[in-house]
Amino acid sequence: MAQQTQTAGHVAFVGAGPGDPELLTLRAARLLAEADVILHDQLVPAEILALAGPQARLVPVGKHGFGPSMKQDDINALLITEAGRHDRVVRLKAGDPGVFGRLDEETSALDAAGIAYDVTPGLTAATAAAASLGLSLTRRGRNSELRLLTGHDVKGFAEQDWRALAAPGAVAGIYMGKRAARFLQGRLMMHGAAPDTPVTVVENASRPTERRLASTLATLAADMEAATFDGPAVMLLGLAPSVAVPDIRSRQEVS
Amino acid sequence: MAQQTQTAGHVAFVGAGPGDPELLTLRAARLLAEADVILHDQLVPAEILALAGPQARLVPVGKHGFGPSMKQDDINALLITEAGRHDRVVRLKAGDPGVFGRLDEETSALDAAGIAYDVTPGLTAATAAAASLGLSLTRRGRNSELRLLTGHDVKGFAEQDWRALAAPGAVAGIYMGKRAARFLQGRLMMHGAAPDTPVTVVENASRPTERRLASTLATLAADMEAATFDGPAVMLLGLAPSVAVPDIRSRQEVS
Repeated sequence: MAQQTQTAGHVAFVGAGPGDPELLTLRAARLLAEADVILHDQLVPAEILALAGPQARLVPVGKHGFGPSMKQDDINALLITEAGRHDRVVRLKAGDPGVFGRLDEETSALDAAGIAYDVTPGLTAATAAAASLGLSLTRRGRNSELRLLTGHDVKGFAEQDWRALAAPGAVAGIYMGKRAARFLQGRLMMHGAAPDTPVTVVENASRPTERRLASTLATLAADMEAATFDGPAVMLLGLAPSVAVPDIRSRQEVS
Repeated sequence: MAQQTQTAGHVAFVGAGPGDPELLTLRAARLLAEADVILHDQLVPAEILALAGPQARLVPVGKHGFGPSMKQDDINALLITEAGRHDRVVRLKAGDPGVFGRLDEETSALDAAGIAYDVTPGLTAATAAAASLGLSLTRRGRNSELRLLTGHDVKGFAEQDWRALAAPGAVAGIYMGKRAARFLQGRLMMHGAAPDTPVTVVENASRPTERRLASTLATLAADMEAATFDGPAVMLLGLAPSVAVPDIRSRQEVS
């Protein structure tokens, strides 16, 4: 056991991106190939986990999955244990670790334990969803600011947050917004957003199972309910799909 | 000439990411290796252009560079010409094409010319800068929303935008903010932001020449002036570097 604790310990936090293995970074692919152990969100697809080397032990630690998941304290404890045992510990997180990935909770635990770490960013779902639609998240004369937020957090929004989001031309990527669709719709219209504001919802962005829903604020909640999304979905407030993008019709589209 | 126009035409917009070649996506690396011609922003470093195959012709088309750059209309015309001549045309943009990359202006021109395209997203500078510092851009109980904006656009901000940005715990990645530092500082403090609000500026995020400036709102403009950044710099409003990240001291740091 003494030998096992001689390593100073290091954890590489790695963003797995939105799901398409080709949207991993070169660095993420290298770290997966070199890892001794990979603690991964359950949402990371098998095609990405397959990039791990034969020596790697894969440990699902949940959080973004739909089945039972580990508590944050247990994940933190496991990270510390593994960092004491192995030189190359990877903590693989869906999307970008720094964007709604609860990265801070795990790095704080490592800081307290004196374990070093570094972070490899990943593509977050909103940017992958917009790219898949051939759309830009910003445009001169339309929106000078891009917002990323979660449906979980909008209940705590202040007046200025709603007013800014409801302004003409505002664009936001809204994560985990399925349950909040009706609330979002109501608050945004109450704050003056146009009922015909486009909202495009992209489920499983970048994966073969990607689906798009072209909606408007007025019908968002009903459209979301009818679409029965069961994968992770990001809502692009203020963006409509372009009919000129040829690959839209080649994938499943909800209408 | 008739033969040259027989191809339907296709352009692959590709995000080059923040500068580190290892932060390219696997798809971006593949598209560069396969390309016949690559029209690239001048800001894309040589190490990334070196991933082009031997058959590829490299055409700098400016915009993010510091030297003379082509006008947008000329870039659009060149894209259309090259798409008529080659099967594999790549338009390589610094960062993420959909985040302050003027993607829409180029895709609109292709739409009008009946030329197909797709978009490979790239890592945008704010996420790379935060990752380099070992920081999360979002945190439960601190900020439920992440904003990305440019220093060029803040002059047009409405009251609610300033109030939201000035709120305690707000986090924003501010691009091209060097010239706007004094204006940002003044407006945010006028709208109630605490003078000791941390602001970390990261120049050349992810590159060997990366530099960090740890500042606060009260001293931002003076600190920025003293730092004399000459590369692209992103300002992380609301984030302070963590002393626990070991690699901070191994790179150049401005203080």
